[in-house]
Amino acid sequence: MTKRTDTIRLGAFLMATGHHVAAWRHPRAAKDAGVDIEHYVSLAQKAEAAKFDMMFLADSQGGFVDRDDPESIARMAGVAGFEPITLLSAIAARTQRIGLVATATTTYYPPFLLARLFASLDTVSGGRAAWNLVTSAAAGEAQNFGLEQHPEPEVRYARAAEFAAVVKGLWESWEDDAFPRDRDSGLFADPSKLHILGHKGAHLSVAGPLNVPRSPQGHPVVVQAGSSEPGRELAAATAEVVFTAHQTLASAADFYADVKGRMARHGRRPETLKIMPGVMAVVGDSERHAREKYEELQALVHPEIGKRFLARLFEDDRLLEHDENQPLPEWVQVDGRKSRPALLLDMARREDLTARELHLRVTGARGHWTIFGDAGQIADQLESWFDGHGADGFNVMPPHLPDHLDDFIAEVLPELRRRGRFRTDYEGTTLRENLGLPFPEHPARRAAALAEAAE
Amino acid sequence: MTKRTDTIRLGAFLMATGHHVAAWRHPRAAKDAGVDIEHYVSLAQKAEAAKFDMMFLADSQGGFVDRDDPESIARMAGVAGFEPITLLSAIAARTQRIGLVATATTTYYPPFLLARLFASLDTVSGGRAAWNLVTSAAAGEAQNFGLEQHPEPEVRYARAAEFAAVVKGLWESWEDDAFPRDRDSGLFADPSKLHILGHKGAHLSVAGPLNVPRSPQGHPVVVQAGSSEPGRELAAATAEVVFTAHQTLASAADFYADVKGRMARHGRRPETLKIMPGVMAVVGDSERHAREKYEELQALVHPEIGKRFLARLFEDDRLLEHDENQPLPEWVQVDGRKSRPALLLDMARREDLTARELHLRVTGARGHWTIFGDAGQIADQLESWFDGHGADGFNVMPPHLPDHLDDFIAEVLPELRRRGRFRTDYEGTTLRENLGLPFPEHPARRAAALAEAAE
Repeated sequence: MTKRTDTIRLGAFLMATGHHVAAWRHPRAAKDAGVDIEHYVSLAQKAEAAKFDMMFLADSQGGFVDRDDPESIARMAGVAGFEPITLLSAIAARTQRIGLVATATTTYYPPFLLARLFASLDTVSGGRAAWNLVTSAAAGEAQNFGLEQHPEPEVRYARAAEFAAVVKGLWESWEDDAFPRDRDSGLFADPSKLHILGHKGAHLSVAGPLNVPRSPQGHPVVVQAGSSEPGRELAAATAEVVFTAHQTLASAADFYADVKGRMARHGRRPETLKIMPGVMAVVGDSERHAREKYEELQALVHPEIGKRFLARLFEDDRLLEHDENQPLPEWVQVDGRKSRPALLLDMARREDLTARELHLRVTGARGHWTIFGDAGQIADQLESWFDGHGADGFNVMPPHLPDHLDDFIAEVLPELRRRGRFRTDYEGTTLRENLGLPFPEHPARRAAALAEAAE
Repeated sequence: MTKRTDTIRLGAFLMATGHHVAAWRHPRAAKDAGVDIEHYVSLAQKAEAAKFDMMFLADSQGGFVDRDDPESIARMAGVAGFEPITLLSAIAARTQRIGLVATATTTYYPPFLLARLFASLDTVSGGRAAWNLVTSAAAGEAQNFGLEQHPEPEVRYARAAEFAAVVKGLWESWEDDAFPRDRDSGLFADPSKLHILGHKGAHLSVAGPLNVPRSPQGHPVVVQAGSSEPGRELAAATAEVVFTAHQTLASAADFYADVKGRMARHGRRPETLKIMPGVMAVVGDSERHAREKYEELQALVHPEIGKRFLARLFEDDRLLEHDENQPLPEWVQVDGRKSRPALLLDMARREDLTARELHLRVTGARGHWTIFGDAGQIADQLESWFDGHGADGFNVMPPHLPDHLDDFIAEVLPELRRRGRFRTDYEGTTLRENLGLPFPEHPARRAAALAEAAE
């Protein structure tokens, strides 16, 4: 495997008490972390001191509640907490260099509002904002926004593509030098550098212009998290960073080659998109020690969480009454067209797992790549994905916060630096500069440059 | 006039380079103030050091652009700048006690999003957020949100009343103690303290619950700025602070008595609503000196601003060509049903004003109460409105920033303090405590208390 000459990009994917479903029950967890601004500021400042490219926040517009079964949320720490754009704006004021990535849905946001919030966050932070475009995984969001049903994926992705174009159009309302603010002539804005979008499309109608000037990064970095077919196509067309989930290098490398391979058709160079799979890395003095740390969390997963997970997975409420320390009952069946339940059932039968052993494989890390080891072993695995063209970097998902972020910073980063794989200081002042992404030239200027070149 | 025993509430109504239309042309203005986070943080910190109850930001969703006439915006500094919720979230992180009031429209926001952003801002700031409910004055916002036309006032106010109820309902999704976060039992949330809104109304359909816990103030303070008939009724029903514009104490006192008089019908006590008219106070060594300061700004108003203002006011484009140093032409006529143009035309004829003299009366201060004097004279005028029951306090609108805020803090506040009219330190840690507003008990707890009392 040839060693790459660029360096690994790192995001810190932060989530209250951590990514593991039982992290909030850990004795060292700050139980109210989801509404504690100082907790988040402290994590962001640590990640910044460690030179992470960015911190990342997931989001849902309140869709994860089963309104018919309030009990189902009683054990989930993610049910309520900060809204990410307000949280990142506050963090922006107490950090200087780290990138700030918020997730926001194209299915339920009005595009004018979204474009405005992110352009303003980019300005508040001096060029460190990124928008993680999602189409919403939680069907329950629909009823919070006046709809009966969550639209089907095809509809969501068609709207998302149009939405992304509208948001970029709004971000291009003003050229970079549209505001001469000339006291003598009294000219604040130059109307010839104003571009009114006037979009009327299948899903959206938005006139513009945006009432925020072009932001420090030209526009916020566009991130995307979907890995479905339409998600890949949209990423190839518009994303600058892609978050994704893979369990093996083979799967990650396939995805990497596929998405980067689609970019040429959109007139884009592959290096203008950074692919960053999620990784739950647990560091210890040895692999065994790391696994023991993880088992501490696994032991805290409440049986009810597992039962409900399995009952939903296999669509059979009898599993709510099943003893989790026994194997799955013989009567559990799956619809062969659904690949995930079939895969898990097959694994359970083959490895003779108890119900608890089965659900712990999934509920804890939520399907992300989970690796264990001492610093050298973790670094080896990250390097193998990086050099194997499965990743340009990683979105680091600490199972438990702050401890596992601290461990990663104290143990893994020095090792990556020794190997010349990670920065010792920020390269630039904006997220775009640190990620090595080009500044998006305003289309009017691009057009002018082309006209000049043709003369 | 009886001297009141409570004290004057003060808001700092901040706006980039200041409220005067030509403030950005002042030699001491920071021309890029509208996108300079340090400028706003510095103003907020000054206002906090001076113990202002709150800072206030106006808003528009991009509606002030005449899309057919881009030239019309070339001289207006307000055309593009920060979005207020992101800006206040950032300011929250660098202040400790001052209240943070953002304007947001019920006509174009989805209520779930608005409830969530403000609840999160209240949490980020430790209980200092307020929402200024407006229905949007700028008709051009409609086209940024997929509508052809701005809805008529009756429709906007009907939606606003329903919207306010929905937002409050979402803010009551969780009781104050809904999150036991009990490690041993594994119970994070108590489902019996979750209240799912399930609203289906004429304009809105919102299921809830909100995915933000009840915020430090119970809910953000609700502010309102409309003074129309339906605006007054909505304020009496739901507002905790009202911003309003009056030119005379008689008019202010009429409004004050009217709105407070309506509250009993909504089961509310008058002291749970603070009425705060806007005031543009210009302080000098003497009244003459103060007026000279103001004239410096008036002299900077560009003729094009006045011409466009008059052409729109009198609906006659020939005024775009009229010499502003001459009186209004004889041919200017007004439709008698429109009171504002008729009033201004009458004033111009009676006082023999030039076109410039006429428009300067209006364009500079945008119709707000403008007062001039040394510190004693300013304090006298503020006291007379306060004791005369025209105001519980004032929203201070510095014509030019930062100078006129500095003057107000250095000159007027010490005088008000000498007279026992303004605080020397904050009374509490939340905006609600400082304004002297009650904590809104959760309805479930109110119901429980009533049931107990009845036993």
